[in-house]
Amino acid sequence: MDFRSKLDACRQAVDAKIAELLDSGNTGAPASPLADAMRYATLGGGKRFRPFLVIETAGLFGVPQAKALPIAAAVECIHCYSLVHDDLPAMDDDDLRRGRPTVHKAFDEATAILAGDALLTFAFEILGRPNTDPDPVIRSELVLGLAQASGWQGMAGGQMLDLIAEHAPVDLQGVTRIQSLKTGALIEFSVMAGAILGRGAPAERQALARYARALGLAFQIADDLLDAEGETAQVGKATSKDAASGKATFVSLLGIEASKNKLKELEGEAVDALHAWESRAEALREAARFVSLRRS
Amino acid sequence: MDFRSKLDACRQAVDAKIAELLDSGNTGAPASPLADAMRYATLGGGKRFRPFLVIETAGLFGVPQAKALPIAAAVECIHCYSLVHDDLPAMDDDDLRRGRPTVHKAFDEATAILAGDALLTFAFEILGRPNTDPDPVIRSELVLGLAQASGWQGMAGGQMLDLIAEHAPVDLQGVTRIQSLKTGALIEFSVMAGAILGRGAPAERQALARYARALGLAFQIADDLLDAEGETAQVGKATSKDAASGKATFVSLLGIEASKNKLKELEGEAVDALHAWESRAEALREAARFVSLRRS
Repeated sequence: MDFRSKLDACRQAVDAKIAELLDSGNTGAPASPLADAMRYATLGGGKRFRPFLVIETAGLFGVPQAKALPIAAAVECIHCYSLVHDDLPAMDDDDLRRGRPTVHKAFDEATAILAGDALLTFAFEILGRPNTDPDPVIRSELVLGLAQASGWQGMAGGQMLDLIAEHAPVDLQGVTRIQSLKTGALIEFSVMAGAILGRGAPAERQALARYARALGLAFQIADDLLDAEGETAQVGKATSKDAASGKATFVSLLGIEASKNKLKELEGEAVDALHAWESRAEALREAARFVSLRRS
Repeated sequence: MDFRSKLDACRQAVDAKIAELLDSGNTGAPASPLADAMRYATLGGGKRFRPFLVIETAGLFGVPQAKALPIAAAVECIHCYSLVHDDLPAMDDDDLRRGRPTVHKAFDEATAILAGDALLTFAFEILGRPNTDPDPVIRSELVLGLAQASGWQGMAGGQMLDLIAEHAPVDLQGVTRIQSLKTGALIEFSVMAGAILGRGAPAERQALARYARALGLAFQIADDLLDAEGETAQVGKATSKDAASGKATFVSLLGIEASKNKLKELEGEAVDALHAWESRAEALREAARFVSLRRS
């Protein structure tokens, strides 16, 4: 199976798991607009790249997909909540996401805030459930890792710095730090979640952390290149926003060519970090190549 | 020590623990306005009634206060995040909270949204830490309980229904359901968290759940009475908002006298549920009387 087909099969499995979790969690009781908004926010497309990383990394350790899927779904709930809140008028003020109206446009602002809160909370509910993993040590380690990756010292902290950067000059080191928090931390956790599930040894975790860090940075540089070069129709959200706002990005600081070179270099680093797994890590290597080449 | 002094001593211990957790969690890295807003949102007063319930219930089982404090702090982080988000312009649009400007007034809307997100996430980070409780079964049970109490089937779901109720007629059953989710669920979890920490037996947990449900409902009826009868200066937030907005509350549906009678009845139910603990549960009984009499 080629990489695209593999990613697509994973996407379908993750979508089905998220739908199942949202359905089974719904005791019929309350708040149907909230449940609708949570479904809209999570089931409206998206590559499911983070879930793919969870599942493929867990697979390196022989963990079956079915066991990794709830954790993959929890990570995607966090990613989707962050998109819903980042799109709000008080934040990035975006009307379009994955080619559809953003949640606060399709519903309203209050519902979007609550749907984000509820998805964030739901991720931890999934991780806390005994049937997600029978070992409470694993569940607890996943909770701690996800909270650290997505909280004030991770993704939320990165979004704060990113908002500040709109009104203050930032150098390359600053952009790297912002992106390692805003985007990198959750990508890194997605990989490490697979290692936690698979009970990876310290040396294995270190190698995967190297892979994940290179991948996360590559992901963001590719995103900046897309913003600079892509078309709205292809990307599914507004493009050229960074240049229009005068915001510092890898592309604005390094230029397009140097950014592409950096992207290639990071792809190489990510691929190299996986050498111990030989051909078994091919899907994760493909993921690094995919990031480097992605156009949407 | 009388109840007020006991509550006050607890408040000081909880404030110190939250400050310690926010300081020690701060690796010096990012996002100082975010950290500032998190401190502002959590350390600006408040009775710490939910933490008091965690600590006193845990105490019924001989759990020392120091062991219950991190869990108490996590519950308070959830409560504070909900206040920050509920106060936002798109939600209840309040400028005043605990006698001070709300977070989006003292900072800005984006920072308030992120501070709420970060506090919500931080609560789970605290619960996931091995030093919070060495038993991962306990940690995991606390994570699941807190997520259920505060998510779409709990507090967030209740806030959604409450927003809808501003534009739709709601009867007494509807108001009871909204409040049991919006306010009751987290109060109930605060009590149950003490029972989880204390490894309470099923019969003990059932008795405490009865106590907590009566207490949670009493708390909300008292809140409605405060809104109807209190003065802004005393309450620390805007009052008479419900009547001005024509929103259904216990007071608008039952009238003031019947609401006060219901409050007394619930106080009695709460007190009765604790009979097995005899004098050891006196502080929790006092808490029920305090709720029934509270004027701020």
